[in-house]
Amino acid sequence: MWHSTDVILKPYPRGFHLITREVVAALPELASIQTGLLHVFIRHTSASLTLGENASPDVRRDFERYFNHAVPDGWEQFEHMLEGDDDMAAHIKAALLGSSLTLPVRGGRLHLGIWQGVYLCEHRDRGGARTLTLTMHGE
Amino acid sequence: MWHSTDVILKPYPRGFHLITREVVAALPELASIQTGLLHVFIRHTSASLTLGENASPDVRRDFERYFNHAVPDGWEQFEHMLEGDDDMAAHIKAALLGSSLTLPVRGGRLHLGIWQGVYLCEHRDRGGARTLTLTMHGE
Amino acid sequence: MWHSTDVILKPYPRGFHLITREVVAALPELASIQTGLLHVFIRHTSASLTLGENASPDVRRDFERYFNHAVPDGWEQFEHMLEGDDDMAAHIKAALLGSSLTLPVRGGRLHLGIWQGVYLCEHRDRGGARTLTLTMHGE
Repeated sequence: MWHSTDVILKPYPRGFHLITREVVAALPELASIQTGLLHVFIRHTSASLTLGENASPDVRRDFERYFNHAVPDGWEQFEHMLEGDDDMAAHIKAALLGSSLTLPVRGGRLHLGIWQGVYLCEHRDRGGARTLTLTMHGE
Repeated sequence: MWHSTDVILKPYPRGFHLITREVVAALPELASIQTGLLHVFIRHTSASLTLGENASPDVRRDFERYFNHAVPDGWEQFEHMLEGDDDMAAHIKAALLGSSLTLPVRGGRLHLGIWQGVYLCEHRDRGGARTLTLTMHGE
Repeated sequence: MWHSTDVILKPYPRGFHLITREVVAALPELASIQTGLLHVFIRHTSASLTLGENASPDVRRDFERYFNHAVPDGWEQFEHMLEGDDDMAAHIKAALLGSSLTLPVRGGRLHLGIWQGVYLCEHRDRGGARTLTLTMHGE
């Protein structure tokens, strides 16, 4: 069984946001998969997806602090500055974190660890509404 | 054909460890797949998986040195310090390296490059026994 | 439907290179997939794959600048120096960026965002011809 759908997220501010519930809510078909995989893909190059701790909001704030430090906006060696100070840094962060997640599905649910949640990583100051492509397959 | 199983690894010390053999040993069903994919997923947010050079132990020690330098334990800007100096750094490292690998299967074997091995990246001082979810499908 | 093939790329110089067209050209079977996934895997530990902005060459030059800064060749704490100054740094960069991409396929085409392209990230001074394993499945 294959299922594929695009989901437009509401706009999120720059930072790291827990979106596990939004992803699951877009997939009523999840309940019919006993064993399979869900591929979550973000169709952008300045926002990304990762799995992170799903309990403490301070963890997500620390992600934002760390990545702003590791990849500074408007870094002096960046050549591509046309679209603003946050643009090139956003591309690098997106590549470091990745544009997709593949998640195990078992017994009609995401089979994640108890502390794992899906993060939307919004790297731009005004990223707007981001689109995900969800592709699920299994039996 | 789908196959899914959870594997509990023995506890590893902090650092980078080659676990290709343990993964393959947990999958006798691999032999029956002519073309397919194996998804290896770690159910934790402070340990991660990556592919790396499988021959020289000094490469794995250099990974540990590099990531400790790039993401320092107890970094001064971290807010989430409740669970120890190594905790927040572990979450960041896990996101940088990733929580899953998708590996090609061909002719009943992992179809990896000759120098590629699966690394368990243990980012905590006492991470304990980590659980992997292995999902294989193919024909 | 499963399809698997190995593709030998022409040698690329050190840096970030757009290879979406080469990947698609190697997959005439793509046209027959209505819904599915393409797994692109690089069989090496000193080159990697990522998705990045597909329009401006300066973005790809900035990637090269950033990663050379973040993971310096011959870093003073590296122990594994036998194969040259660029070798250990290449392994770290490859792990940060990742060795595979999973891409949605819909209606016989890659279903990427309008700005997304596949980057080959060549981290060695003389990496030579790199081999990709392409695995596609769908219906």
